[in-house]
Amino acid sequence: MKEEDRRNRPVFEKREYHTDSFGIFFGVESILYSGRSRFQNIEIFANKSFGNVLILDGLVQTTEKDEFFYHEMLVHPAFTAHPSPQSALIIGGGDGGITKEILRYPVERVKQVEIDAAVIAASEKFFPWLSSARRDPRYELLIGDGAEYVRTTAEKYDIILVDSSEPIGPSRVLHNKAFYENVKRRLNPEGVIAAQAGSPFYHFPFIQECLSFLKKIFKIARLYTGPVPSYPGGGWCYAFLSAGTDPLQLKKNPPPGLKYYNHDVHKAAFALPAFMKTGI
Amino acid sequence: MKEEDRRNRPVFEKREYHTDSFGIFFGVESILYSGRSRFQNIEIFANKSFGNVLILDGLVQTTEKDEFFYHEMLVHPAFTAHPSPQSALIIGGGDGGITKEILRYPVERVKQVEIDAAVIAASEKFFPWLSSARRDPRYELLIGDGAEYVRTTAEKYDIILVDSSEPIGPSRVLHNKAFYENVKRRLNPEGVIAAQAGSPFYHFPFIQECLSFLKKIFKIARLYTGPVPSYPGGGWCYAFLSAGTDPLQLKKNPPPGLKYYNHDVHKAAFALPAFMKTGI
Repeated sequence: MKEEDRRNRPVFEKREYHTDSFGIFFGVESILYSGRSRFQNIEIFANKSFGNVLILDGLVQTTEKDEFFYHEMLVHPAFTAHPSPQSALIIGGGDGGITKEILRYPVERVKQVEIDAAVIAASEKFFPWLSSARRDPRYELLIGDGAEYVRTTAEKYDIILVDSSEPIGPSRVLHNKAFYENVKRRLNPEGVIAAQAGSPFYHFPFIQECLSFLKKIFKIARLYTGPVPSYPGGGWCYAFLSAGTDPLQLKKNPPPGLKYYNHDVHKAAFALPAFMKTGI
Repeated sequence: MKEEDRRNRPVFEKREYHTDSFGIFFGVESILYSGRSRFQNIEIFANKSFGNVLILDGLVQTTEKDEFFYHEMLVHPAFTAHPSPQSALIIGGGDGGITKEILRYPVERVKQVEIDAAVIAASEKFFPWLSSARRDPRYELLIGDGAEYVRTTAEKYDIILVDSSEPIGPSRVLHNKAFYENVKRRLNPEGVIAAQAGSPFYHFPFIQECLSFLKKIFKIARLYTGPVPSYPGGGWCYAFLSAGTDPLQLKKNPPPGLKYYNHDVHKAAFALPAFMKTGI
């Protein structure tokens, strides 16, 4: 779209800096929520192209228009590679998108541990199409520290999804070795963990660092990628972790109605570009 | 990166609007070139994160840092699927990145038809690492209209690459049926055409429209995708067209030294997400 063709630009804008000299901007139609919780700054606004947008500490977490790329790719590879997942744990994921994707499956129980009750409350109001899945009787919410929960609970799960924000705010502890050692202990024998792992283009050294300790903890520790238009670099990286369950041996079909995920893109997502083997 | 952490932000910025309420911004360290040719506005500036950036009519074409995603994915799928490419034609591609990728192969001749001599001249100066391949004796440049060239020439090629800009400026004619009917006539029997086809996220209806006429012209007309961080949506779509040469039967290894392309991502690129089959 040509710059000179732009008309009716909103006066207010919200930006995310991907580096100190590059980033994205959203025109703001209306500010829906703006506040500081005990843990982070929370902003929700309406944008003409992306619908409602959730920003935590200045970083885009979820937009109405493109949330499906991220939420489908964090949930469905783990669920279709597991032979029969009955229980799932979500660490983080306050906006509700992960819960919505999980409850498409006939699981028995889903537990979510989210540290920030304010994110839950704001999402209930401004992302009801994501968070309404929380009314499902199979779902249970615990407001608390996910790292502490996996360190102390005796519960075990078939699938554990780590839907953290970037490793600079309250999610810092969700990106270290001790956390993943505890997560591993909470996993049933054929269980699978999927975790968001950052931008291949911007965060590759950090991804490599995490992968190196994950490979020491898990028999299978594989990275996979997929697009997310509103995230830095337009694409995102995820980690698939298990004690043996193979990410490329698909055990079941995905539920109907998905917008991004299918078996073809599942397999394709594990094909890594040259720079993710050698550095960029 | 947190907004409040930003320091030393450059005062000048250059933007690209992806929609009327969303886009990207670059801090401008220095403006290297700014002018209007007979065909379009040409701007080149230096950015701290992306290096030198080329913008035509307000749209990012090439950045020093991430050009390899696009140029490798337009060139190498066609070249590795063809049994023995000896000749190649480039329509557009004034910055020189496509030429550079092609000349990694032992081809006999490469012809480039670029309409805008000003893009060639500016790229020679500010993207020498891309355009220096033009000194290769196998390379020949014709300044002219690519659509007119394929309509009137008698020459034939093993590979034809359509490196057009968006269908709003001088590249408008490179996105229609008559152009591709002429391109087909310029192709040797086992020949392959690869063409840039837009953003899956933003331009999907237009991509569908083009694919529908391409399927009538070519026995094989397949879309494939790959990331390009500085392009709208962070990912791009390409078309692979042939009279029978199969995009998934790879005939040779890629040249050494590539940053994105390998055989794994080649095959993965043809796995299309659910919305590219059903609409977004």
